[in-house]
Amino acid sequence: MHVALLGGTGDIGEGLALRFGADTDHDVVVGSRDASRAEAAAAAYRSDLASRGVEASVTGAANADAAAGAEVVVAAVPPYHLRDTVAAVSDRLADGAIVVSPAVGMDGDEDGLHYDPPSAGSLTRLAAEAAPDGTSTVGAFHNLAAGRLADLDADLDADTPIVGDDEAARETVASLAGEIDGLRALDAGPIANAPEVESLTPLLINLARYNEGLEDASVRFE
Amino acid sequence: MHVALLGGTGDIGEGLALRFGADTDHDVVVGSRDASRAEAAAAAYRSDLASRGVEASVTGAANADAAAGAEVVVAAVPPYHLRDTVAAVSDRLADGAIVVSPAVGMDGDEDGLHYDPPSAGSLTRLAAEAAPDGTSTVGAFHNLAAGRLADLDADLDADTPIVGDDEAARETVASLAGEIDGLRALDAGPIANAPEVESLTPLLINLARYNEGLEDASVRFE
Repeated sequence: MHVALLGGTGDIGEGLALRFGADTDHDVVVGSRDASRAEAAAAAYRSDLASRGVEASVTGAANADAAAGAEVVVAAVPPYHLRDTVAAVSDRLADGAIVVSPAVGMDGDEDGLHYDPPSAGSLTRLAAEAAPDGTSTVGAFHNLAAGRLADLDADLDADTPIVGDDEAARETVASLAGEIDGLRALDAGPIANAPEVESLTPLLINLARYNEGLEDASVRFE
Repeated sequence: MHVALLGGTGDIGEGLALRFGADTDHDVVVGSRDASRAEAAAAAYRSDLASRGVEASVTGAANADAAAGAEVVVAAVPPYHLRDTVAAVSDRLADGAIVVSPAVGMDGDEDGLHYDPPSAGSLTRLAAEAAPDGTSTVGAFHNLAAGRLADLDADLDADTPIVGDDEAARETVASLAGEIDGLRALDAGPIANAPEVESLTPLLINLARYNEGLEDASVRFE
């Protein structure tokens, strides 16, 4: 499978690139607005993986080139770039491509971080509205601690809830996520249920702030 | 410690009464608007505990009598009764009493349940606004599956995030919660952080709907 990681030079993109590279045989294409930055990041990820004896198919390209022909396109960008990033690659997306949104809108005050969804209701919904006809949109990977994700020596031991209006697309992303060692995808239903999934992220950050030892906590449902 | 469970004839009240009865030496007073219903429920809980060889101090009383003199008063009532229930016992609350709110506002559609906080921002905040001066309000126990909580043969293996503006009150409730076997209290900070805590409940219910084996799931952060 061809998996594109738009914004793949950021921390969640790095973690997903390393985990997909280490645990799967998929072709991972790291995207960035700047092709040379994407290529440099991909080279660094390949080198990191090679040092662990893994020869992975991780390459870099400008976002639109990374997205072209990909079965799964993860928009691993900050919330305020999500709409533009998806729109910028829209005419390069393959028919049937799945756009994956891991972004969460949050604002903060002195007490903690708070869920702050866009007027669309959730960032997953915003991504779905920006994605072209013939594609599906799925929310996933919201609640993974970036540092733990990118540390291949760390056990993830994490669940990640998946939302999307197309059940087959949810299943594809759940299956892909489940190929990462220590990651279990859970079905959270249609995009209407995205706010409760996205809200986990500020909760995790608040728990990390107020409890020792939860700095990179995963969430498990059992 | 004297712990009052207002609305203690309901499912969360039952579970907390049984768990406090089984695992602690506190005096548990089950409250209800109807004293005789509270007494009948308390007798049933005592009988259930006695059948397991536990002689617990679990009694029943009208809500206001249950709350009188209690160090911790759990308002285990449906969201739409929360404000009235707290207001109805206010003049009986001891100075320094801690009001605990486990309630969550939700609405549902065909896709799932959605977090639906009151205009106060959260039900914990609503409880705090209804509670009199000289008391503290803490949110806790939101995310415990009622059936699992009330089944003393079931391992809880659960975390419960605690919110409250008074750190000492949070610590008191966390300590009390932690006396229940298999329950770990986590500090989630001030009441401003309650929406992210309360949002866990509809997420858990949605995950239970869309995934086999998660019907009474606990959440763990680790």
